[in-house]
Amino acid sequence: MIAEILCVGTELLMGQVLNTNAQFIARRLAALGISHYHQTVVGDNAERLEDTYRLALSRADVVITSGGLGPTVDDITKRAAARVLGQELVPFAEAEAMVEERFREYGKPMLPNNRSQTLFVPGTQLILNPYGTAPGGIVPAGEGKFIVHLPGPPRELEPLFREQVEPWLASFAGCVLVSRYIRIFGMGEAAVDEALQDLELGGNPTLSPYCSTGEVMLRLTASAEDEQAARALMAPVEAEVLRRLGDAVYAVEDTEDGSLAQTCVHALQEHSLTVATAESLTGGMIAAELVTVPGASEVVRGGFVTYQSVAKTMLLGVPEETIKRCNVVSAEVAAAMAEGARARLGVDIAVSATGLAGPGGGTEAIPVGTVYLGLATKEGTRTIRLHLAGDRARIRTLAMKNAIHAVLKTVTP
Amino acid sequence: MIAEILCVGTELLMGQVLNTNAQFIARRLAALGISHYHQTVVGDNAERLEDTYRLALSRADVVITSGGLGPTVDDITKRAAARVLGQELVPFAEAEAMVEERFREYGKPMLPNNRSQTLFVPGTQLILNPYGTAPGGIVPAGEGKFIVHLPGPPRELEPLFREQVEPWLASFAGCVLVSRYIRIFGMGEAAVDEALQDLELGGNPTLSPYCSTGEVMLRLTASAEDEQAARALMAPVEAEVLRRLGDAVYAVEDTEDGSLAQTCVHALQEHSLTVATAESLTGGMIAAELVTVPGASEVVRGGFVTYQSVAKTMLLGVPEETIKRCNVVSAEVAAAMAEGARARLGVDIAVSATGLAGPGGGTEAIPVGTVYLGLATKEGTRTIRLHLAGDRARIRTLAMKNAIHAVLKTVTP
Repeated sequence: MIAEILCVGTELLMGQVLNTNAQFIARRLAALGISHYHQTVVGDNAERLEDTYRLALSRADVVITSGGLGPTVDDITKRAAARVLGQELVPFAEAEAMVEERFREYGKPMLPNNRSQTLFVPGTQLILNPYGTAPGGIVPAGEGKFIVHLPGPPRELEPLFREQVEPWLASFAGCVLVSRYIRIFGMGEAAVDEALQDLELGGNPTLSPYCSTGEVMLRLTASAEDEQAARALMAPVEAEVLRRLGDAVYAVEDTEDGSLAQTCVHALQEHSLTVATAESLTGGMIAAELVTVPGASEVVRGGFVTYQSVAKTMLLGVPEETIKRCNVVSAEVAAAMAEGARARLGVDIAVSATGLAGPGGGTEAIPVGTVYLGLATKEGTRTIRLHLAGDRARIRTLAMKNAIHAVLKTVTP
Repeated sequence: MIAEILCVGTELLMGQVLNTNAQFIARRLAALGISHYHQTVVGDNAERLEDTYRLALSRADVVITSGGLGPTVDDITKRAAARVLGQELVPFAEAEAMVEERFREYGKPMLPNNRSQTLFVPGTQLILNPYGTAPGGIVPAGEGKFIVHLPGPPRELEPLFREQVEPWLASFAGCVLVSRYIRIFGMGEAAVDEALQDLELGGNPTLSPYCSTGEVMLRLTASAEDEQAARALMAPVEAEVLRRLGDAVYAVEDTEDGSLAQTCVHALQEHSLTVATAESLTGGMIAAELVTVPGASEVVRGGFVTYQSVAKTMLLGVPEETIKRCNVVSAEVAAAMAEGARARLGVDIAVSATGLAGPGGGTEAIPVGTVYLGLATKEGTRTIRLHLAGDRARIRTLAMKNAIHAVLKTVTP
């Protein structure tokens, strides 16, 4: 089966909106083992949209659209598809009920325009939308082909795709696809590739890397007649990946929604340990990232942002003399920051970060990208020296992630 | 002139990379007043890429490609274009010199493969690349049309587009385009649209809104024979926008790279004022965002992350009794947090945030999204109550931006 992605909206052509939908759908298709070779963006123009439909249907079995299901005259995604299919749009009672319910829920009046949102080509399998006012639909397009309409807002499209489109796509394939997600820190994409290249050769299961700043996530996907058989196919590959990558793997999960912060917060919760932060160049990012995890308040007590040197002395008791003697970017200052934070907040673990994010201020001894982390526990204090590459934003993000990883490794060595 | 964007790379089809290049180029084309009606993504497949070139050249004057200029056999963007144009790729000495220089700079050996990066169709105007190893080029495609090749990494593509492609595109148009960027906080997209809809009718100058969480940026663009004439066209529209939106406008700039944090930090610098933070639900985001601005260390002294209630008492001296009596999400606690931070760090302004980001924990009296900000200065302390809508991440981001905006309004009322 071949799919194609067609995103509709003049706001995409104007660059007013970043097209996260194309990436989201692409990732899900890849996880489902469905090929796709083209993504197209067109504006709210009937003629160009119709041409694009014809082209897409000539080369794909399923054309997945996002956007243009709203109530205005600009919302032409369904109308253009109907025209290409030589069909008329007709009202669907179930869609009407859904739209009416949504407006009742929002306490807003349903306008005559909104009736257009309930129109679909006869034979459409509706995608009822609990997240917004626009229902989607799976439209038969002849010759065993389909057009799938989804609303544009990602907070609607993403759950609708997972909950209603994926099961339909899987039933096409006639098999079950199961994925595992292996999360790696402290190993670059090239090194991961080199270590695993003979395992990444496609086939079944497949192994695909996804990179973000400082991290690589591997998706391992197997297709089989049932879940148990799929898991049995994956198990030896997963074991081999873990054997080769060793300590660099920090989590293996059934969901792709994890993060370093989530793994760290959950580890702290499991061990009933509290944590505090003392941040200079990261300026609060370490604490803010930990707090993204719901329930973080059980284990994240608080922290200090000591950006100016004077704040390190005032809030954390770092001796002025140490700062002068060792430099504010030093193992000594990182250690004193962590110890000060641990003592003042009475936590099990305190983590600190001091460093030079640039762009200016580098010297030969302490170039931009030099970062010291401190980790204070009841066993004592240790420090880590990092040399990070990139611009100010990247250096700060890498320092933050290294700090969270260091806390995780302190909890589960 | 009509342009079209063609992004090449299997990593885009796999969803491994978010296509920020399409948005970047789209925004720049819009700012230059150049129409574009299609964006396409294809993988590293010669036949499909050639078909896509033919289609794009049939409907556009300039086809702008990103990606596929690397040294591997998968990098086929230039080769496919040459085939469509019926041309051969030949080595360009200037490109060779550039690639050699870049490898010397990086201290890496240049491999025989890298020679392929110096090949272009005869007549190509090179885009020499100081940011990476792949030169780009502007390739004549017959009938007055062109293909523009740019490397895929955004940190290379973006400056190359601004510095080398934009002047070339502008020379096509035969006129000067000048933009002004009007930054708005505390007014939704719909309200901005309603206030300005008669001004957004296109023509010259054009006025386009760009939205991000809690913010709207308006781009005002005029084309004229010279910069002075363009500015004269914009001045009355800009004045009218400022008259209608009033206080909601916090900055008007010649660049689109600004931010609320940057405006706030620059205002603090101008008035020689220092600031500190005391954060609960934002968990360090306010400080971290201020610190994104280079030079923030002059004015951002530091701050406190007091996530658990006990930390508010330990670090900021918020009386336990106040927390019990008023609730931790209250004006009283926000005020005490700000006053505690100001006293402990001896700054001119301290800003605090306490609130409920959810997902759980809401009550009828204090629903999820309730946030109190505190602002302590030598004149006294005031508090602001916010009702924010959205998920945990959005509520925290809006709380952070409101806090920074409140500091800005304290400095420049």
